[in-house]
Amino acid sequence: MSVIVWWLVTAVMVAAHSASAGSAGVVESYWEVENQFRSPDCTEGVVIAINGTFPGPTIYANAGDTVIIHVKNKLSTENVVIHWHGIRQNGTPWSDGAAGVTQCPINPGETFTYKFTVDKAGTHFYHGHYGMQRSAGLYGMMVVRSPKETLHYDEFNLLLSDWWHLSSTLQELSLSSKPMRWIGEPQSLLINGRGQFDCSQAGYFNEGGLKECNFTKDDPCAPTTLRVEPNKVYRLRIASTTSLASLNLAVEGHQLEVVEADGNYVAPFTVGDIDIYSGETYSVLLRTHNPSPPRKYWISVGVRGRKPNTPQALTVLHYAGASESERLPFPPRETPRWDDFNRSKDFSKKIFAAKGYPPPPEKSNAQLFLLNTQNLMEGYTKWAINNLSLSVPATPYIGSIRYGLPLEYLKFPGPEIIENYDINHPPVNPNTTVSSGIYNLTMGMVVDVILQNSNVLKGEMIE
Amino acid sequence: MSVIVWWLVTAVMVAAHSASAGSAGVVESYWEVENQFRSPDCTEGVVIAINGTFPGPTIYANAGDTVIIHVKNKLSTENVVIHWHGIRQNGTPWSDGAAGVTQCPINPGETFTYKFTVDKAGTHFYHGHYGMQRSAGLYGMMVVRSPKETLHYDEFNLLLSDWWHLSSTLQELSLSSKPMRWIGEPQSLLINGRGQFDCSQAGYFNEGGLKECNFTKDDPCAPTTLRVEPNKVYRLRIASTTSLASLNLAVEGHQLEVVEADGNYVAPFTVGDIDIYSGETYSVLLRTHNPSPPRKYWISVGVRGRKPNTPQALTVLHYAGASESERLPFPPRETPRWDDFNRSKDFSKKIFAAKGYPPPPEKSNAQLFLLNTQNLMEGYTKWAINNLSLSVPATPYIGSIRYGLPLEYLKFPGPEIIENYDINHPPVNPNTTVSSGIYNLTMGMVVDVILQNSNVLKGEMIE
Repeated sequence: MSVIVWWLVTAVMVAAHSASAGSAGVVESYWEVENQFRSPDCTEGVVIAINGTFPGPTIYANAGDTVIIHVKNKLSTENVVIHWHGIRQNGTPWSDGAAGVTQCPINPGETFTYKFTVDKAGTHFYHGHYGMQRSAGLYGMMVVRSPKETLHYDEFNLLLSDWWHLSSTLQELSLSSKPMRWIGEPQSLLINGRGQFDCSQAGYFNEGGLKECNFTKDDPCAPTTLRVEPNKVYRLRIASTTSLASLNLAVEGHQLEVVEADGNYVAPFTVGDIDIYSGETYSVLLRTHNPSPPRKYWISVGVRGRKPNTPQALTVLHYAGASESERLPFPPRETPRWDDFNRSKDFSKKIFAAKGYPPPPEKSNAQLFLLNTQNLMEGYTKWAINNLSLSVPATPYIGSIRYGLPLEYLKFPGPEIIENYDINHPPVNPNTTVSSGIYNLTMGMVVDVILQNSNVLKGEMIE
Repeated sequence: MSVIVWWLVTAVMVAAHSASAGSAGVVESYWEVENQFRSPDCTEGVVIAINGTFPGPTIYANAGDTVIIHVKNKLSTENVVIHWHGIRQNGTPWSDGAAGVTQCPINPGETFTYKFTVDKAGTHFYHGHYGMQRSAGLYGMMVVRSPKETLHYDEFNLLLSDWWHLSSTLQELSLSSKPMRWIGEPQSLLINGRGQFDCSQAGYFNEGGLKECNFTKDDPCAPTTLRVEPNKVYRLRIASTTSLASLNLAVEGHQLEVVEADGNYVAPFTVGDIDIYSGETYSVLLRTHNPSPPRKYWISVGVRGRKPNTPQALTVLHYAGASESERLPFPPRETPRWDDFNRSKDFSKKIFAAKGYPPPPEKSNAQLFLLNTQNLMEGYTKWAINNLSLSVPATPYIGSIRYGLPLEYLKFPGPEIIENYDINHPPVNPNTTVSSGIYNLTMGMVVDVILQNSNVLKGEMIE
């Protein structure tokens, strides 16, 4: 199916409004990035840790603050960068942290200082943006608050990710091999870096054929528990940094009021569960009731949009006074069917900017038609847009622009949207090439971006 | 035991004499370095391949030639360098290929050109010199011949290495963890990148509890076979690029005449087997006899100096006319006992420079006493010289010197050789620190280097 999303793209690009800073502060941290043995899902692997923590430390700042992060690369042979997902980097493009785009990667032993202003309140996260280091666990939350915010509640952060037992190096090598070796679905979904593979949840249940794991609170894979009081409102800040999985999150017996999406306030709406795709963030308000006697409820995260082969991630909403040893009935509530696409569309269609945001511009200066496909190129599997598969250059784009080095500028494609594109029988498309070319936009231009998605989800492997 | 090796060190440093070039040529190659799935010992792992080959291509050049190698890094996130082991780099220190010493590592996507003169004939090799990339299989042979050479025979190259099933990333992380996780002995020894783990040799034998592997000649782990004619002399060029193992090589039923060591001709001597330590090269002459009927002989490579837990590497000397299907009796000849140290010393003491080399200088200007120890530092296992454990700086030393950046110069240690050092009861030595400091020598200085080795080999793990 093709979805024209100009209104969403332009809304996100234009509608961002600034919360003007009160007394701007400075949030400064020194980070050391290194590999560490960890057991994110009770099975040992290697993660990229920051200052010995996985996920990395949560950054808290106020709108208008300057954030300064000194990142020292303590990996042995790998370079690293960190991208601040959701931060606009007005005037500080060098700090955007995309290797090959805004900076050369940080070499082992070297330190790079990111310095940027967080100009408006919102829920964000950061992650490695080099090779597949995000899949190796290089990520963390970033929460920007504002004194002007009207929403003030006790908060929980839920950072969602997916996890393979295959190292990220082997993931990358497998996917880029000729022929591609498909790495399969993730072994686990992680909530705040913790999941449970082939293991029951913290003694909460021991049915379903899983072996019981008796966690101590020091276990790196012991689930996070959200401890709440009755009759209060909590803000859950949720972000997804998955490599593959689209997710759905639900809290048993509770409704969720969505108030923020991708760092922007939205017109509030209430749902039983939320879809969240990789790179997205939400804030939802959770109103506790007053169960008598006090009890626990499942919080479950499941896969959407692909036929899942990964168990739900589970954690527990724990009302004050509930028995520590209480076991919840298994199985927990199922997340919605992976292929209930209408449900996904219904959810997306509920999202509108909150009052006070400027409307999208009425006219655009240009239209950019983008068709994404999965192609074979000389035996390699390549994902491409308009038949070009990106090869990020060793010299960063903005460095090339700054110093007048040659760059390939792509011709703006014409209105090539393909009507009646049958994704079940896609046309033969052998013309993919590798390119570092870029589209050249003029400051202030309004562009409609029309994404045509040729991919089909049949519940089969992506191969 | 402590061994004073001044004579060897100074001999190697000073005795190198040049074969003046006839008509100097240029040997130029374009290399692409990337990870590939391979099965060096019939078990799949990842190697760093060059132009799709593992080990990398053999470089052949004549003395006096200029070698130009354009190395493109096609790894995903890892940097790389290549060191030309045995090449003196007179006037071309930037091409020595030691990361942090002579160059910044080559970033992914970038190309670095090594250009140097191979000023004299000899058997050399090259290898990765960054992190543990040599252990990941980044190595190859380099053979420099000279029209003036008196030794001209049919040749075989035997590049010896050791191989773990644990990836080099995990090897590095394990060894640098707190506490150190010892990675154990290598799973296999490789000859020209081929070994056989838990598998009989190419159908040559099927005893000893190993499963039989029926190799085809295209198998990446099928052993190299050396096919020879009777009554001829062959030159075996042998190099060891092991990460841990010291080796011994023997050819069943044949004597070996050693004629070259580490790129220098030596006074020829004949032995039944040779010791070869990591970083060493030898040329030996092998005189075939005339077995009737024609037959095969084992060539075996075993571990020396550590209690081995790695089977011998085996390949076959195959006389013309011998039956292809002939199976050699198993087990093959044993390599010498790992702890027969007197045998090792006897071998070392046979090595003297060939006639015509200048003698070592009679006097030295200074003496450099170096004590190497294995210490604990804040829970980390560190190997140190004079209690300093090297931390290679991100800015290469010769770059710092060239641009006048600050460097820490170490004070020349006094004559601190410790008499009657009892390596079975080493003194407590808690003072190791990490340092990037260097010793500053003046051009033309003659220095006696006295190495005092505090390590003890008891047949136990190194832990």
